[in-house]
Amino acid sequence: MLPIQVHLTLPPWLEEVADEKRRYHSDEERVALAIELSRRNIAQGTGGPFGAAVFDDQGRLIAAAANRVVPQSCSIAHAEILAYMAAQQRLSTHRLNEQGGRYTLATSSQPCCQCFGATVWAGVDELLIGARAEDVEELTEFDEGPLPADWIGELERRGIAVRRDILRDEARAVLAEYGQTGPKY
Amino acid sequence: MLPIQVHLTLPPWLEEVADEKRRYHSDEERVALAIELSRRNIAQGTGGPFGAAVFDDQGRLIAAAANRVVPQSCSIAHAEILAYMAAQQRLSTHRLNEQGGRYTLATSSQPCCQCFGATVWAGVDELLIGARAEDVEELTEFDEGPLPADWIGELERRGIAVRRDILRDEARAVLAEYGQTGPKY
Repeated sequence: MLPIQVHLTLPPWLEEVADEKRRYHSDEERVALAIELSRRNIAQGTGGPFGAAVFDDQGRLIAAAANRVVPQSCSIAHAEILAYMAAQQRLSTHRLNEQGGRYTLATSSQPCCQCFGATVWAGVDELLIGARAEDVEELTEFDEGPLPADWIGELERRGIAVRRDILRDEARAVLAEYGQTGPKY
Repeated sequence: MLPIQVHLTLPPWLEEVADEKRRYHSDEERVALAIELSRRNIAQGTGGPFGAAVFDDQGRLIAAAANRVVPQSCSIAHAEILAYMAAQQRLSTHRLNEQGGRYTLATSSQPCCQCFGATVWAGVDELLIGARAEDVEELTEFDEGPLPADWIGELERRGIAVRRDILRDEARAVLAEYGQTGPKY
């Protein structure tokens, strides 16, 4: 029978790491959560070394996610994609900032070509990034894929501010640990 | 409570259009199905004017999908993405051609920036396209987003053959109908 639905789960430990009652005010607190999601994901063997989270302009956590590509048999299930999906379904909108408000995605590593494209449509106003693409490619077997030459400019021209190198060393440390010891997710 | 799962449904009429018992041998038959999915999707009001399907090298239909962005509150839920997800979950693999075999995505319109990126990771060997990006932008309010300058070359260098303009007029006709009369999904 042809599939008529798709179901994806987030890791069962998610709420041990992501605290819905807390306010994540600074860029560093937000990326620190994304990095902690990436670290826990490899420690628990629930996916690849990537985490992401969506916040509103009060610092409230709307959704948190980690990479689930291999456990869920889904090449789409990158951390950023799952964070966007979960946040949009929670707020019942296909564009997070459609009704106003400002939304931020924090991610442990620079979005790949797929998550770059998803960021264009998701309705976020800001993208906060830990490790760079070259860190991912240096420290793991992952490829970031082909991006537009001026990918930051493309986002900024669409109203999405980009800030990089936030806790970059901490993000790199998780990638390095994964690259040395992890299962190859 | 933070979301711990994501659930997406395909349109309820899917199996009226997509025939799992049939073999879709030619490129034209495959894109014709994608276009018929796009047409039915706007006729039924179940999403935007885009359809896509995954086939194996025997012409068997693995998964069929249509755009579900607005009904499912999900900017990720483009037809191509849902076709990849459904096919991968059906075959229990995060990369369709990982165990061998050749897989094809047929889509009614050129993939946007998000679906271009997803195509890099999905494990397809071939991409068949009906309408061009400029048709989408001419005939509807949709934006295709920023792509690498040589997006076809980027795919082909990764082993993904690209063939365009298959039944382009038929694909354009659905876009034109949507642009003139459709709800703005």
